[in-house]
Amino acid sequence: MAAGSTIGTIFKVTTWGESHGKAIGVVVDGCPAGLPLCEADIQELLDRRKPGQSRFTTQRKEGDQVELLSGIFEGKTTGTPISMIVWNKDQHSADYSTIADCYRPGHADFTFDEKFGFRDYRGGGRSSARETIGRVAAGAIAEKFLRNLGITVCAYTKAIGPVEVNGSEMDPEEAKRNKLCMPDAKAAKEAEQYLDEKMRECDSVGGIVECRITHLPTGLGEPVFDKLDAELAKAILSIGAVKGFEIGDGFAAARSCGSENNDAFRMEAVGKPVKVTNHSGGVLGGISDGSDVVFRAAFKPTPSISRRQETVSRSGENMELKIHGRHDPVVVPRAVVVVEAMAAITIMDMLLLSMTSRMDRIRDFFASEDR
Amino acid sequence: MAAGSTIGTIFKVTTWGESHGKAIGVVVDGCPAGLPLCEADIQELLDRRKPGQSRFTTQRKEGDQVELLSGIFEGKTTGTPISMIVWNKDQHSADYSTIADCYRPGHADFTFDEKFGFRDYRGGGRSSARETIGRVAAGAIAEKFLRNLGITVCAYTKAIGPVEVNGSEMDPEEAKRNKLCMPDAKAAKEAEQYLDEKMRECDSVGGIVECRITHLPTGLGEPVFDKLDAELAKAILSIGAVKGFEIGDGFAAARSCGSENNDAFRMEAVGKPVKVTNHSGGVLGGISDGSDVVFRAAFKPTPSISRRQETVSRSGENMELKIHGRHDPVVVPRAVVVVEAMAAITIMDMLLLSMTSRMDRIRDFFASEDR
Amino acid sequence: MAAGSTIGTIFKVTTWGESHGKAIGVVVDGCPAGLPLCEADIQELLDRRKPGQSRFTTQRKEGDQVELLSGIFEGKTTGTPISMIVWNKDQHSADYSTIADCYRPGHADFTFDEKFGFRDYRGGGRSSARETIGRVAAGAIAEKFLRNLGITVCAYTKAIGPVEVNGSEMDPEEAKRNKLCMPDAKAAKEAEQYLDEKMRECDSVGGIVECRITHLPTGLGEPVFDKLDAELAKAILSIGAVKGFEIGDGFAAARSCGSENNDAFRMEAVGKPVKVTNHSGGVLGGISDGSDVVFRAAFKPTPSISRRQETVSRSGENMELKIHGRHDPVVVPRAVVVVEAMAAITIMDMLLLSMTSRMDRIRDFFASEDR
Amino acid sequence: MAAGSTIGTIFKVTTWGESHGKAIGVVVDGCPAGLPLCEADIQELLDRRKPGQSRFTTQRKEGDQVELLSGIFEGKTTGTPISMIVWNKDQHSADYSTIADCYRPGHADFTFDEKFGFRDYRGGGRSSARETIGRVAAGAIAEKFLRNLGITVCAYTKAIGPVEVNGSEMDPEEAKRNKLCMPDAKAAKEAEQYLDEKMRECDSVGGIVECRITHLPTGLGEPVFDKLDAELAKAILSIGAVKGFEIGDGFAAARSCGSENNDAFRMEAVGKPVKVTNHSGGVLGGISDGSDVVFRAAFKPTPSISRRQETVSRSGENMELKIHGRHDPVVVPRAVVVVEAMAAITIMDMLLLSMTSRMDRIRDFFASEDR
Repeated sequence: MAAGSTIGTIFKVTTWGESHGKAIGVVVDGCPAGLPLCEADIQELLDRRKPGQSRFTTQRKEGDQVELLSGIFEGKTTGTPISMIVWNKDQHSADYSTIADCYRPGHADFTFDEKFGFRDYRGGGRSSARETIGRVAAGAIAEKFLRNLGITVCAYTKAIGPVEVNGSEMDPEEAKRNKLCMPDAKAAKEAEQYLDEKMRECDSVGGIVECRITHLPTGLGEPVFDKLDAELAKAILSIGAVKGFEIGDGFAAARSCGSENNDAFRMEAVGKPVKVTNHSGGVLGGISDGSDVVFRAAFKPTPSISRRQETVSRSGENMELKIHGRHDPVVVPRAVVVVEAMAAITIMDMLLLSMTSRMDRIRDFFASEDR
Repeated sequence: MAAGSTIGTIFKVTTWGESHGKAIGVVVDGCPAGLPLCEADIQELLDRRKPGQSRFTTQRKEGDQVELLSGIFEGKTTGTPISMIVWNKDQHSADYSTIADCYRPGHADFTFDEKFGFRDYRGGGRSSARETIGRVAAGAIAEKFLRNLGITVCAYTKAIGPVEVNGSEMDPEEAKRNKLCMPDAKAAKEAEQYLDEKMRECDSVGGIVECRITHLPTGLGEPVFDKLDAELAKAILSIGAVKGFEIGDGFAAARSCGSENNDAFRMEAVGKPVKVTNHSGGVLGGISDGSDVVFRAAFKPTPSISRRQETVSRSGENMELKIHGRHDPVVVPRAVVVVEAMAAITIMDMLLLSMTSRMDRIRDFFASEDR
Repeated sequence: MAAGSTIGTIFKVTTWGESHGKAIGVVVDGCPAGLPLCEADIQELLDRRKPGQSRFTTQRKEGDQVELLSGIFEGKTTGTPISMIVWNKDQHSADYSTIADCYRPGHADFTFDEKFGFRDYRGGGRSSARETIGRVAAGAIAEKFLRNLGITVCAYTKAIGPVEVNGSEMDPEEAKRNKLCMPDAKAAKEAEQYLDEKMRECDSVGGIVECRITHLPTGLGEPVFDKLDAELAKAILSIGAVKGFEIGDGFAAARSCGSENNDAFRMEAVGKPVKVTNHSGGVLGGISDGSDVVFRAAFKPTPSISRRQETVSRSGENMELKIHGRHDPVVVPRAVVVVEAMAAITIMDMLLLSMTSRMDRIRDFFASEDR
Repeated sequence: MAAGSTIGTIFKVTTWGESHGKAIGVVVDGCPAGLPLCEADIQELLDRRKPGQSRFTTQRKEGDQVELLSGIFEGKTTGTPISMIVWNKDQHSADYSTIADCYRPGHADFTFDEKFGFRDYRGGGRSSARETIGRVAAGAIAEKFLRNLGITVCAYTKAIGPVEVNGSEMDPEEAKRNKLCMPDAKAAKEAEQYLDEKMRECDSVGGIVECRITHLPTGLGEPVFDKLDAELAKAILSIGAVKGFEIGDGFAAARSCGSENNDAFRMEAVGKPVKVTNHSGGVLGGISDGSDVVFRAAFKPTPSISRRQETVSRSGENMELKIHGRHDPVVVPRAVVVVEAMAAITIMDMLLLSMTSRMDRIRDFFASEDR
């Protein structure tokens, strides 16, 4: 796709806005008519990505109150574009001269200048994490739509640096309790200590987010290029700081054998074949297979660190840079809801697309009411 | 995107055909006019994915001779669609009754039936690895186009099961010499022994393909959803059997610190900023940064193994399945060229899209000739 | 859309091939699985566009036998791409030197050279009317799909030059009987005389095709840019030689008053509102309104005439050109089936897209079977 | 395309908003970086579509002040999405009960209800003419871009009901002076009298808008489905109330002969071939030919008339409707700028797409700077 601020074929999401511009927003087109929706539905998800919630996130106080501008009438979606806006309040006229004149390592400063000739350097401009507000607002609609059909999307922190959640002791409720969104209290505690240590060293850390989609119908995803996992991979890699994606056993599958990795089928009580295991992560041949869809995203460490770093200025001179101010030492806890949002957006689009795959179902659809 | 057999925005690739249908083919639209192209250019790449080349690939003798049907005139592309076809010769009227009536574990049999109501079960139909012929043929055009601009795309086997190439001793020429496409003779030897062992156990193995793109201009990729790495991730995950994708340090970045993972900038001799290291894998903020683009794809083990497996029949009964016939014990060596093709297709499309990002360059473009 | 050889969002049609290349073809992606389809279904429509059927069409003997290469299994569509090919048999090594070295007035010779730098001049290359073979083959699938849902698409000649069909005496059966596809025997006779006269004068004529789509459900078409009539307009203008499109009263509506042009609603026996008249042509606000969709396409006269014409050579010299050989004095009778095909392709795509507009119907869809 | 509120491939325009919702807006993605742009550039075009300017337009006082929310930095476009908003001020809590409960003839009330199950009936909701604010704001950007390259787009009223401009006496400056945007003072006067007469009769009238694009480079438009005229036709038919489109001689070409309709080529002084006449309207084979692009759009009469009309209620009863309040007796003068905007949007997109058609130009592009 060109330009690149729109994702989706039927359920289309277009985000806009810079970190320190007037506002951040999103237009969601192709949401079916008749879905109950209000600002509180959106706000709930947005609140999960807000900064300033713990000592591991920036202290910038962002209200981030969403305003619904169109596409809703009498509490329901009308089938027309849903426009949502969040005003930028915290745009204090900071001193951006350091950022403006040099390229921060690990940031998009250099590549924006190369691509566009110049850039809005205030607070990271378009490549700021604030861009994800639009994604999360759109994701809230997709999650509500999916819940209406009994489908849930749930992401959580799988690892912070080297500290990993113990798979056999995962407790989804715990992920809502601790600041790091880890479904394992013990790991969360360990991760906090690790983070504190790295913060003392003026350093930052990466981590892994895992996402699980349950009760997904079979048949989502197209057989060749637009496989369900391929679309998810694109959606997830489109989140800044993500460097890897894996579904099911992922990279571990590359080291295993067919006899271990194949999932046997068995008839379940209700008379449908089910997979006995789920090494595939819920996708076979790019199409949902009825098991939970499970994937992971690898996040790099926050590039903004307050250590001295080598870089070059816009005018082409070698220099040393020291970034001031507070920055999240890890993006993972705040990224959890973004991963969830991107997954929901993708799944909703693929679900709508899947409705046209069979002649028998199309015939029923148009016969069922006298359309 | 819907339907899913087309990829690309400007350089558009549409594949068609089933394993045991009449033919397999591809239509390539949006290739600029004036690129020298002949059947030999395509055949060269196709020959690299042919089976029957070693004891690790199926013995099916496929001529796989490509025929160019349109879009070429006097040895050059005309700017109109390039249609290419490979006839299926080896469609012996095999006995497909086993495959037809049950769901092979790890295959798309079940999901195709669920999505479409029935399936062409002969040789895997549309989900057969033969579908990649179209991808490789299109990739050959993209690679030729990129070479014309000085850009090269090169993939090789990074790991076979647990046997990994030694990064510090990689020799690209060696990858062309051994059957496993590994750029490390010692690792290749070890991997062969591992494969022989697994074949004796009637088992299969997975592996990892790495791909490196050199001399890419800066500025490819769009800032938000259509990041260069996001598009690559989709293209690579769209290859059957791929379960993971990572760029640069990938999943390892999730365990590292910002001070290690950030790439410092430094002025190079010719007066351009360069990155001193390349943990980013050639992409910052979704846009190419001038370093080599380096990514990896994880392949699961071949699902067809000749061990007894549990499954269910189409009519809904639990059963045991034993798949006969020879199958590749590992898909990785033959997948190398497919990864390369998908990377080339994606890069070419993003490169064409990148031409419209700057007003100054557009003005020059239309002024440079009296158009 | 880029490149431009693909049309459609869910039902996607990609044509390829030049007039005197090896073959002409089309790939149809996104056709639902389970539609009965065989080569005869396609051939029937293709035969309606064949030349050599009367003294008003070129005598070139084209077999134009279509071959189905993929996407069909046991007589039904599988949901995967349907590839169709027609080999070019009549490519006698003609002397193209006249065409090769100059720009024929009214043809695309000059613009192809400007856009692509050179062109395949043999028989018009890609801009030949033979390109429509792919459209008609795809249209045959769309028409079959629509008939399955009770929807019919029917086009006929409305006018040949100044000779127009008498609306009040139209007989659809008559259109199948006469060579000019006019649903009015008297007008057909007059038109034949007019054509004979113009042929004697070494001249050509234009005309108008009308198309009527019946039993279309309400609700097709999107409210803003992708209105049903907007998509039809694009599809029809994409046919070479079409210079105008109008729906319902069209240009006549521009001269009428609101009191005449508005269609009153009234309840019909079966309890649905119907329009008493159909000035709108079956579309209100870009969405199908339950009445017949009726539109017209204006075709320019065939540009190839055997009179002496002024032009310039490729090398930039003024010259006179006399085109030899036989050419259709009017394209309209052969274009009727192309208009029908493009309408069917568009309607099928919009119908599939319309399935996702309402939450209540989506809920029913996924509840109706235990998916 | 699905959903339908986005148009364009590289230059992408997404409109949102209902007539009596909070606001109306548009997101423009894919505008090249470095184009000087400010709110005044947008406001100038918006002011041309404002109501309340003469006795022939509604008296609703709309400020329609546009606000630029993103994508601009230091007075220039940044290459990221440009979000623009116009707040709806005039949403007095009117009594909509008449409109809410019945289907106005000639309006989209019935089709919205059929497609979406219900509708935002306030002031026409999404199908209101206010939706065009977004189009005009985006069109202002496109026009500025095109002017930067020396290309101009100019639309004017060609006819009001039966009163037509005299082609041989057209004066573009006059179109800016009179309220009806007619480039012929005499015709404008006649049209005013005709309108006054129809207003006395509580009736409305239709008309024709003509648009001319000058100094367009050759080579815009794709050969098959995405012909320049096909894309223009779609863009123009997507404007509410448009019932017909024609390019060059249009429907008149259907009645002419090849010897009249063909445009001869001749070498011009500067050494390029030019067409001696322009029956083609600037397009040959779907590609711009260097002459002015000239097309016309037919508008139906305003459907809102204060006469008594037959219709049905939502609950399915036949009834009589009398629409109160003031309505424009003709939409044409206010639609002129909308036609211009849609033409500019389409041309800009096709121009950007045309940059990738030739290998030689691509090679030059990437060689010209050390990218």
